[in-house]
Amino acid sequence: MSEISRYDQRGVSADKGEVHAAVKHLDKGLFPNAFCKILPDVAAGDPLFCNLMHADTAGTKTNLAYLYWRETGDLSVWAGIAQDAIVMNLDDMACVGCTNDIILSSTIGRNKHLIPGEVIKAVIDGTTAFVDNMARHGVNIHLAGGETADVGDVVRTIDVGYTAFARMRRHDVIENALQPGDTIVALASFGQATYEDRYNGGMGSNGLTSARHDVLRHDYAARYPESYDARTDEQFVYCGSRSLSEASPVPGINVGQLLLSPTRTYLPVIQALLAQLQPHIHGMIHCTGGGQTKVMKFAPGLRIVKDNLFPTPPLFALIQQESQTAWREMYQVFNMGHRLEIYLPQEHATTVLDIAHQFGIEARIVGRVESAHRTEVVLDTEHGRFEWA
Amino acid sequence: MSEISRYDQRGVSADKGEVHAAVKHLDKGLFPNAFCKILPDVAAGDPLFCNLMHADTAGTKTNLAYLYWRETGDLSVWAGIAQDAIVMNLDDMACVGCTNDIILSSTIGRNKHLIPGEVIKAVIDGTTAFVDNMARHGVNIHLAGGETADVGDVVRTIDVGYTAFARMRRHDVIENALQPGDTIVALASFGQATYEDRYNGGMGSNGLTSARHDVLRHDYAARYPESYDARTDEQFVYCGSRSLSEASPVPGINVGQLLLSPTRTYLPVIQALLAQLQPHIHGMIHCTGGGQTKVMKFAPGLRIVKDNLFPTPPLFALIQQESQTAWREMYQVFNMGHRLEIYLPQEHATTVLDIAHQFGIEARIVGRVESAHRTEVVLDTEHGRFEWA
Repeated sequence: MSEISRYDQRGVSADKGEVHAAVKHLDKGLFPNAFCKILPDVAAGDPLFCNLMHADTAGTKTNLAYLYWRETGDLSVWAGIAQDAIVMNLDDMACVGCTNDIILSSTIGRNKHLIPGEVIKAVIDGTTAFVDNMARHGVNIHLAGGETADVGDVVRTIDVGYTAFARMRRHDVIENALQPGDTIVALASFGQATYEDRYNGGMGSNGLTSARHDVLRHDYAARYPESYDARTDEQFVYCGSRSLSEASPVPGINVGQLLLSPTRTYLPVIQALLAQLQPHIHGMIHCTGGGQTKVMKFAPGLRIVKDNLFPTPPLFALIQQESQTAWREMYQVFNMGHRLEIYLPQEHATTVLDIAHQFGIEARIVGRVESAHRTEVVLDTEHGRFEWA
Repeated sequence: MSEISRYDQRGVSADKGEVHAAVKHLDKGLFPNAFCKILPDVAAGDPLFCNLMHADTAGTKTNLAYLYWRETGDLSVWAGIAQDAIVMNLDDMACVGCTNDIILSSTIGRNKHLIPGEVIKAVIDGTTAFVDNMARHGVNIHLAGGETADVGDVVRTIDVGYTAFARMRRHDVIENALQPGDTIVALASFGQATYEDRYNGGMGSNGLTSARHDVLRHDYAARYPESYDARTDEQFVYCGSRSLSEASPVPGINVGQLLLSPTRTYLPVIQALLAQLQPHIHGMIHCTGGGQTKVMKFAPGLRIVKDNLFPTPPLFALIQQESQTAWREMYQVFNMGHRLEIYLPQEHATTVLDIAHQFGIEARIVGRVESAHRTEVVLDTEHGRFEWA
């Protein structure tokens, strides 16, 4: 059974080809190679400014939170889900240089049969707590409210999404103009940043359908049929060996907590990076869907070589061990250790490393940009050499 | 079986009490009695301006579109769903006086097992078509893109949401300061406006869980189990007598098309109204959740008397006939003929009527505002007198 078929079986696109086809004729915005679509300044009509509006959700990570909450009664996982959905937006927007005065609105759909008001409250309170924490680190986010709908005929358990808006100077936009010779500095997705209150396994909000089904034991299928689509062939449903509450490879954290690690935001770090290095940064990539190959869309005619990646963190080693997914595929689905890449001339790399370390985040030079005749990504890893073109 | 229990059985809140409790401590914005939350001008920092950000979805109307599309192959219903989700935002925002230069972002979740790329394309193309139509009527909407996620473990079929952002002058904000003596002019939700291409039954995107299950025949349950929550007691699932394809009470339109009538936008009309009457308008109410009682939240210490409502349009008569819902409840769930109310001094009512008629929309004086010792809504209708306090 190929990996693509596993995706198909689980109702997930490996490459979102159909979605890209549906939107391909739409306007690409002012800076087509920027990480997010950049609109003219519709809000205030100033030709020196531009607008960003961005939407994302916590995806199927909500089902993992649902299982954990049902098994343990621990409502705190829902704050993590709010953070997941928020950071999937904010860190994309930070990649174009937008790190402050962001307005945020939520769209939550729930099945009232299964999700009581205390869960909604935990998501809303988690949002407020995240916003307060960011404010303490100089990142101002403004809550506009949102919609919470009871739509049990649409949503099996709960769906949590956020949409973000910001206005910024066009001059400050980072367009992703990567250059041959650029150094790639990567910021770890795992560990504990100074603005986090516990160890983070490094999970973002991508690949959770695979990770959840591949890692967890099959008995969750019978107990929580509401947490997956019954159309999925049963051999692909919760086909791993682990329980949520058993010890994970990381001391003091169980498997559920490791998988549920809230998507780390890099916003405080990026804000500090831009303050010192903005004119020197050629590009920033948020390694979400596509994982270590995400950069390909933004590097036309360049070879991206990464030959000094972080050692595989325990979370991703666990997922691979349980799923037996080919390593090539692992690098294409998961961030595998870093979720942020800074592309800039080598002489500024040390400054990036220093700033990241000030925030307690491991960082390293993972590779470089080379000129090429076509667009390529080359990963030279502890698990082999993998190429995409 | 009371109406409240029917809601509970179907996983829907009658009053969203839990949601309101979860958000009650959050900031209410600059104008707490305005129809939408109004933020300071985060975008550009001008104290004379303010920002709005608003989220909503097509709710369970997507399941009705799904049934119709599966039964007939007619993809055009998906354009209506895009319009539903968009207008639920825009017409709320128009009630505070915001009718132009709105930025829109989508959040679509689908089950890839059931929803192919052509449906996503139909939703996206429907969005573009609606935006183009509004542009021809002087309403400029800007598409920011959005997120389309394959989340079959979260979403049974498809969920379609939009979030809108706009910036406007604070001076232009309509705060909902209703006055004793105000006249209530209502604009019909049914008929065919000059900017619509066919008869509109008057359905918004509220009450669709009830309407769908109460009107349609039970055989849809076995054929489309993906279109509802199996936790719902089967006696409440598709318990009506109608088929989607059978003739409706409206000539030339079948039952499915009548129920799927896309939520009418009043934006072109409101834009014209504001141009002539802005300083005289004391409030505008978009009759969505809460139907004819929606105004209560915005009329503290006033009695709202509506004693000249539109005759019940065929769509709502059909829903009541099939569901045998008490009429009092019908007025609380559905708009029953008008989805927009303008509150203003009587001397300007004729101007409102004239402008609505120019757009082919029926309008009438439906009632008045009276001083009272508590907040009350009184409906004197063809089906009886109903009061809320």
